[in-house]
Amino acid sequence: MVLRFHASRAFLPLTTSCFLKLGFTSPTKSFAKMASENYTFGRYKIDPKEVFYCTSLSYAMVNLRPLVPGHVLVCPKREVQRFADLTPDETCDLWLAAQRVGRQLESYHEASSITFAIQDGPQAGQTVPHVHIHILPRKGGDFEKNDEIYDAIDEKEKEMKQHLDLDKERKDRNLEEMAEEADRYRKLLL
Amino acid sequence: MVLRFHASRAFLPLTTSCFLKLGFTSPTKSFAKMASENYTFGRYKIDPKEVFYCTSLSYAMVNLRPLVPGHVLVCPKREVQRFADLTPDETCDLWLAAQRVGRQLESYHEASSITFAIQDGPQAGQTVPHVHIHILPRKGGDFEKNDEIYDAIDEKEKEMKQHLDLDKERKDRNLEEMAEEADRYRKLLL
Repeated sequence: MVLRFHASRAFLPLTTSCFLKLGFTSPTKSFAKMASENYTFGRYKIDPKEVFYCTSLSYAMVNLRPLVPGHVLVCPKREVQRFADLTPDETCDLWLAAQRVGRQLESYHEASSITFAIQDGPQAGQTVPHVHIHILPRKGGDFEKNDEIYDAIDEKEKEMKQHLDLDKERKDRNLEEMAEEADRYRKLLL
Repeated sequence: MVLRFHASRAFLPLTTSCFLKLGFTSPTKSFAKMASENYTFGRYKIDPKEVFYCTSLSYAMVNLRPLVPGHVLVCPKREVQRFADLTPDETCDLWLAAQRVGRQLESYHEASSITFAIQDGPQAGQTVPHVHIHILPRKGGDFEKNDEIYDAIDEKEKEMKQHLDLDKERKDRNLEEMAEEADRYRKLLL
């Protein structure tokens, strides 16, 4: 089961989506402000239609080709390469966001466990130099061997960078499909 | 490179070690109180000599057979199976502890990256039902393929439970060796 995940670099203004305001450090962010926000992942711009959750310091996005249903990424809004470069507020906000997203997606996808992983730095498999948590809802039999999911995550990291660089034609899932998935998750997290 | 990691369940009172008091939520804990504390990992008691860092809500311990130099575990003090069961204070404290431990051990072991992973629930490979973060300092060439470290983590999870249940004779590293490693890390984190 080797699938690629991806986040489009094409930025489009968001007009219809509804984001959740968790706001660990700043809970009062208007919808209009969030909708007009620029989300970046390393040097790439992320289409806000792919973003389904955000706080004052973090955001969560769907993947082009998730490894399992509900495989998403949670990132700090600030472009920071290494986990240790995050401020305490960013660190707490990021993991509280990941905790909430994981809980909801595990339930939504009727899974029973979650794999959380950060490949923190190039020697750990990181390709885009922007901290990101992989969240993968898990269930019995999703991978023949549990450890295969890690092989797949690692493969995705390598392919993601290439996709972010090269994918202009969206040969994988189209934006509408990803936006629809993001819409469903956004409602879960209201 | 398939090695086992382990934390002894044998509890011994600590009299000479010096713990750091990070105290994200409660910074004023006396040495005497910390030294006399009981550390548990699931239903197992952990020898405090293997614990090299603790905060009010979390602690970090060395492994019997680390996968790479500096491979350690960070756990909440409270026995909680799933990451989502942690309170916000516990979640923040745990990851701030992991961030600090990771930064220091990466530098100490002259590594250049870190793998952070939580196998959150049995379908994600968790064997001991107590949240724990794997921290693995990484460097170029430590594993032939990056993803092999994940295979090894998974293998460790399976073996750890068996070791905790069966290892009374300490066939692996002896307590003195582990205590010496914990002493070195404790000094790093002062």
